[in-house]
Amino acid sequence: MTKPRLRIGLIGTGFMGKAHVFGFTSAPRVFDLPCDLELHTVADITPEAAAEAARRLGFAHATANWRDIVTNPEIDLVSITAPNALHKEMSLAAIAAGKHVYCEKPLAPLAADAREMAEAAEAAGIKTQVGFNYLCNPMLGLAREMIAAGELGEIRGYRGIHCEDYMADANGPYTFRHDPAGGGALADIGSHALATAEFLCGPVSAVMGDCVTMIAERPDGKGGRRAVTVDDIGRAFLRFANGATGSIEGNWIATGRKMQHDFEVYGTKGALAFSQERFNELHYFSTADARGRQGFRRIEAAPDHAPYGLFCVAPGHQIGFNDLKAIEVAGYVNAIAGKAPEPFNFRAGLRIQTLVETIQTSSREARWIDVA
Amino acid sequence: MTKPRLRIGLIGTGFMGKAHVFGFTSAPRVFDLPCDLELHTVADITPEAAAEAARRLGFAHATANWRDIVTNPEIDLVSITAPNALHKEMSLAAIAAGKHVYCEKPLAPLAADAREMAEAAEAAGIKTQVGFNYLCNPMLGLAREMIAAGELGEIRGYRGIHCEDYMADANGPYTFRHDPAGGGALADIGSHALATAEFLCGPVSAVMGDCVTMIAERPDGKGGRRAVTVDDIGRAFLRFANGATGSIEGNWIATGRKMQHDFEVYGTKGALAFSQERFNELHYFSTADARGRQGFRRIEAAPDHAPYGLFCVAPGHQIGFNDLKAIEVAGYVNAIAGKAPEPFNFRAGLRIQTLVETIQTSSREARWIDVA
Amino acid sequence: MTKPRLRIGLIGTGFMGKAHVFGFTSAPRVFDLPCDLELHTVADITPEAAAEAARRLGFAHATANWRDIVTNPEIDLVSITAPNALHKEMSLAAIAAGKHVYCEKPLAPLAADAREMAEAAEAAGIKTQVGFNYLCNPMLGLAREMIAAGELGEIRGYRGIHCEDYMADANGPYTFRHDPAGGGALADIGSHALATAEFLCGPVSAVMGDCVTMIAERPDGKGGRRAVTVDDIGRAFLRFANGATGSIEGNWIATGRKMQHDFEVYGTKGALAFSQERFNELHYFSTADARGRQGFRRIEAAPDHAPYGLFCVAPGHQIGFNDLKAIEVAGYVNAIAGKAPEPFNFRAGLRIQTLVETIQTSSREARWIDVA
Amino acid sequence: MTKPRLRIGLIGTGFMGKAHVFGFTSAPRVFDLPCDLELHTVADITPEAAAEAARRLGFAHATANWRDIVTNPEIDLVSITAPNALHKEMSLAAIAAGKHVYCEKPLAPLAADAREMAEAAEAAGIKTQVGFNYLCNPMLGLAREMIAAGELGEIRGYRGIHCEDYMADANGPYTFRHDPAGGGALADIGSHALATAEFLCGPVSAVMGDCVTMIAERPDGKGGRRAVTVDDIGRAFLRFANGATGSIEGNWIATGRKMQHDFEVYGTKGALAFSQERFNELHYFSTADARGRQGFRRIEAAPDHAPYGLFCVAPGHQIGFNDLKAIEVAGYVNAIAGKAPEPFNFRAGLRIQTLVETIQTSSREARWIDVA
Repeated sequence: MTKPRLRIGLIGTGFMGKAHVFGFTSAPRVFDLPCDLELHTVADITPEAAAEAARRLGFAHATANWRDIVTNPEIDLVSITAPNALHKEMSLAAIAAGKHVYCEKPLAPLAADAREMAEAAEAAGIKTQVGFNYLCNPMLGLAREMIAAGELGEIRGYRGIHCEDYMADANGPYTFRHDPAGGGALADIGSHALATAEFLCGPVSAVMGDCVTMIAERPDGKGGRRAVTVDDIGRAFLRFANGATGSIEGNWIATGRKMQHDFEVYGTKGALAFSQERFNELHYFSTADARGRQGFRRIEAAPDHAPYGLFCVAPGHQIGFNDLKAIEVAGYVNAIAGKAPEPFNFRAGLRIQTLVETIQTSSREARWIDVA
Repeated sequence: MTKPRLRIGLIGTGFMGKAHVFGFTSAPRVFDLPCDLELHTVADITPEAAAEAARRLGFAHATANWRDIVTNPEIDLVSITAPNALHKEMSLAAIAAGKHVYCEKPLAPLAADAREMAEAAEAAGIKTQVGFNYLCNPMLGLAREMIAAGELGEIRGYRGIHCEDYMADANGPYTFRHDPAGGGALADIGSHALATAEFLCGPVSAVMGDCVTMIAERPDGKGGRRAVTVDDIGRAFLRFANGATGSIEGNWIATGRKMQHDFEVYGTKGALAFSQERFNELHYFSTADARGRQGFRRIEAAPDHAPYGLFCVAPGHQIGFNDLKAIEVAGYVNAIAGKAPEPFNFRAGLRIQTLVETIQTSSREARWIDVA
Repeated sequence: MTKPRLRIGLIGTGFMGKAHVFGFTSAPRVFDLPCDLELHTVADITPEAAAEAARRLGFAHATANWRDIVTNPEIDLVSITAPNALHKEMSLAAIAAGKHVYCEKPLAPLAADAREMAEAAEAAGIKTQVGFNYLCNPMLGLAREMIAAGELGEIRGYRGIHCEDYMADANGPYTFRHDPAGGGALADIGSHALATAEFLCGPVSAVMGDCVTMIAERPDGKGGRRAVTVDDIGRAFLRFANGATGSIEGNWIATGRKMQHDFEVYGTKGALAFSQERFNELHYFSTADARGRQGFRRIEAAPDHAPYGLFCVAPGHQIGFNDLKAIEVAGYVNAIAGKAPEPFNFRAGLRIQTLVETIQTSSREARWIDVA
Repeated sequence: MTKPRLRIGLIGTGFMGKAHVFGFTSAPRVFDLPCDLELHTVADITPEAAAEAARRLGFAHATANWRDIVTNPEIDLVSITAPNALHKEMSLAAIAAGKHVYCEKPLAPLAADAREMAEAAEAAGIKTQVGFNYLCNPMLGLAREMIAAGELGEIRGYRGIHCEDYMADANGPYTFRHDPAGGGALADIGSHALATAEFLCGPVSAVMGDCVTMIAERPDGKGGRRAVTVDDIGRAFLRFANGATGSIEGNWIATGRKMQHDFEVYGTKGALAFSQERFNELHYFSTADARGRQGFRRIEAAPDHAPYGLFCVAPGHQIGFNDLKAIEVAGYVNAIAGKAPEPFNFRAGLRIQTLVETIQTSSREARWIDVA
């Protein structure tokens, strides 16, 4: 019995484009997907670059015009890994053409745009996915499951961070990530900390932001300097709808940190601590352990923590960053086939943009703001 | 040649009283102090308890009336480890009698009281010390020295926490630590996070607080319940006078945490990370390390980090919590002898109370407040 | 310009069969390989199983007779992931047919068999690969490079282990891994510790073994018990040709350990420490660091450590176990294309079997034995 | 009611002499000892040095002749921290005079001497103590208690090390620690690894040694070089009487290691891992934990782990190296008062010397040797 084919068009061939392809080729080997995936067409800037990308990445066709992908009736799913500023136009075009859309984060620079995209997708009835692959980690799934099952009791406190140092050098040039519309550390990586916070603890109901610019100007690439107004560090106090309180920080000038996407969550019966620096581990404290024998235990990723076992039948062998993308693709393909809800759709992407903007506004206005 | 004697009166014989005695007996064995220390008189609630404490702790005399210590002309230094609410009365009496005063933290429940105490001490010209012994850790000294020497470059970001779980049990009784005047997690342990933040990065210039009560009532010890209004978690965003920004959190309901007095500090040229859970280590990242060889390095406490070498001539053997108290005593005795400035005097204790109250006010009023 | 095609036949579809396919499909997306890889035919026990495996794994053809793969002139490379006892027969048949052979470890239960296989391969001029993918870790490559470059100075001491707990349960059944010919913890996983030791420090010249059976009998799967004579723990003292000395341990009853493939290596100028439990890190101590600033530094895998950057352009994101297999495949394909030497050929696999057997003999005879 | 006084004479005022005094002054503050301790007389090389030591360390009397201490009827207990070669003569003289003797390790360079000392002590009926203070760690006590209580099930495997780097510099001078009689890394620090192994797992029944000299000559302090024949690394395979097997390593040229006194012990139901680098922690794995929630848990030292609570009523605050000495003193004083067995008497010290020599002999003769 043959499966339906899901024919894929990819726009953009950089780091995330490659990661998508990794997901598309790896997911079917690891998961028993309801569809076969076909790498149909890839779009890049020039015909030559596109042809080379097609060859290297395994697509049957290439184009220098992304609209060819959107309009091609043979294509079912459009992956968008182009610069952020293009996400909206591309997504709306693809949605209008009835394609499923898999768009890298952030969904759009501004929440208003993201909302338009989410509403268009919902109206069209197609399935969407935003790339928030840290959430696909089996250990984050375990954490969420433990919290939902009450293993930590009632949640009281949360601390989340996402700190890296890729903008720590003050002589690093001004980029699109510094653009006032949609730029800044909070939007770029603090968004991950927010996504994880809600993934684990449920909706945030109010925020107090603290967004600071530490490097006030950067080389403009033309021999001059350009003022930077977006945040290098974005912090927030959080109120969760479930009564818990917490904080997050996004920081792209944290010298020495490469992937400090960490959290600690404290409940009445236990606690969890996690660091993306060692993302195949989850540290768990239980007050139910015997006296004198309590302590944070280091749970290593294992087949008990689905879908780890599909990657490796032996515990402790560890999955990698790209495997998170394969898990994301599998979840999305199952959603397209109607087997499961969308793991992180445009509505979810909009939610993150809303949180980011609310925090930015809160910081600017120095007041607590309820999250709509 | 004999040294001058410093005759000590101790008020209070609980955990901190014992810790003071540990410091007084250990410091002279470890340090070459300018004075001999004599355990003169100890005060406890009853004559029997005081006599027993004198025997057990090594004091020559005992009393059930703390005023005997304050008025005894044979006593030079008064150690106050009685409940917080008594710190002010006892300190002022001792100062009035011309004694040096070594008072446990918090100096007083309210900053106004602490100010009165600091001013009285300064007017009297006696030497004071507040117990903030975490600052006496050689690794914190190393961190401060590295920052001061510019080894991290310009400081940009700071995260500090002090989280424990001794109040995590909602059935734990209401205590003086829950009293609206001076109580709460921020005052009790967040104060340590604030002290460390300023010890390392210099003065905080403005704060935004977030103090939350998570356990709204506790057993009153008489079969009923009593409302709690102080914070179980106290957070703050910080602005430092040197331009850095940061955050701290004090949390006494952090299930599983026993001594999470941690910080991370990020500069333009390096970073430090520290946890009191392993307080004989300091983790240091330097951008000057060779490419492909960079990483946080785990510096173990060693004779290179004074005064570690006075405790142990071999590196990596580790000092303990009580040794921090010995270091505190040594610093204070040197100050009394005029050999060094007071390490953490009443003025410094007042500073911490001021920060705590400013954060509490900021939280209540939901606005940024400059620190006076 | 089209590349030559390398047409692959796979024998065995279990854990390692799937891992090979993962490598074959992932490697071309990550590396710029000199050949295109084609999943031609897969062999499994029954036609149905083979057909299902072909569908799931992406092979064009299926067979229930592994000899179909060996004799098919369309196939260039035979991957052997069948039970160990069949490795020799399959490999020799494939070599005789002029195929390149990629065989899972151990190459054969006995060194004599492995020797016959290595010699046959060399005589036939085909390229071989044994699956020792832990060696493909960029951090192990970094360690080897650092040692070779003299960054640790002269190597003096080595400790290596490979400990897991998959045989810790005494009620786990007798399996082929318990067979006297080729079985035991030393052969099964101690072999990895030996491979890493020589990968880093060069040839071992003499050994003293200590192989112990701790679980003397196991369920035979038929309701009875069967005696076990192979080692549950295999230890060895080592002499290296370069003058260093060391030890290794293989242990499959190390309760709680899932992937403790660790080493520490000490030289005159520095040291390295590594754990496969966190295999994207390498800990490095340098005596050249400034006084008071020395310590083991945690180097995180980054693009500086080839080929990590081909998987991810950002540091600290981490590769997974399956990615090690992709690196192994890439190295092998390059060797087949004549671009590089074979990374770990049958001769290298024989070497490991020789070390294992020499240690077993040494243990049995309780004497040091020079390694041939 | 007054307690009996135990009047102490100390021979030697170096690092360990100071540590003894620390123990003597700290133990009574921490423990409720059955005797009062009096620092009576200290002996050093010259009258001036002794007088200065008496003043600094708190002794009432001083002497330049250690025999004054041994013969003084006012002294009850003689602490010997003089160079190893003098331990025997001093101990026998003190025993002959009916004193209790507290001797630093190693008890004597040779087991035969240690035997003579142990037998003399037993014949005289006095109480002895050898300084093996790592065993006094509450976390080692916890480990031993857990093993004895069967919490790990039947013990199968053990790995112990004691590695430092104080002899790593080949230009470090020849010292008494390099003397063929009693010198070498195995005797100096491997002895600690052996003591811990038996403390936890009971008697070792047979050994196979591997003692290697890596730095064949050292500066003789007179401008020349002197050959070194003792081991820089001493390893052993172990058989325990309880059926377990294991290994230890003593290594004083382990570059970068300051206090790597570590062990891992694996049983049928659980495992423990420990590092002296973080000696207030014990890592515990239990197979009884729920599926998917298993992992090594980090138990932090707490009042549940006696006698930690006597040092600090709060968990996680940590004790230091010198505190281990206070615990040792307390145990010894209780033994002298007949309240408890001797914690680690001369017979125990002899045992360690016997193990060391048996391993050295085994290494020299390259054969397994049963331990007498």
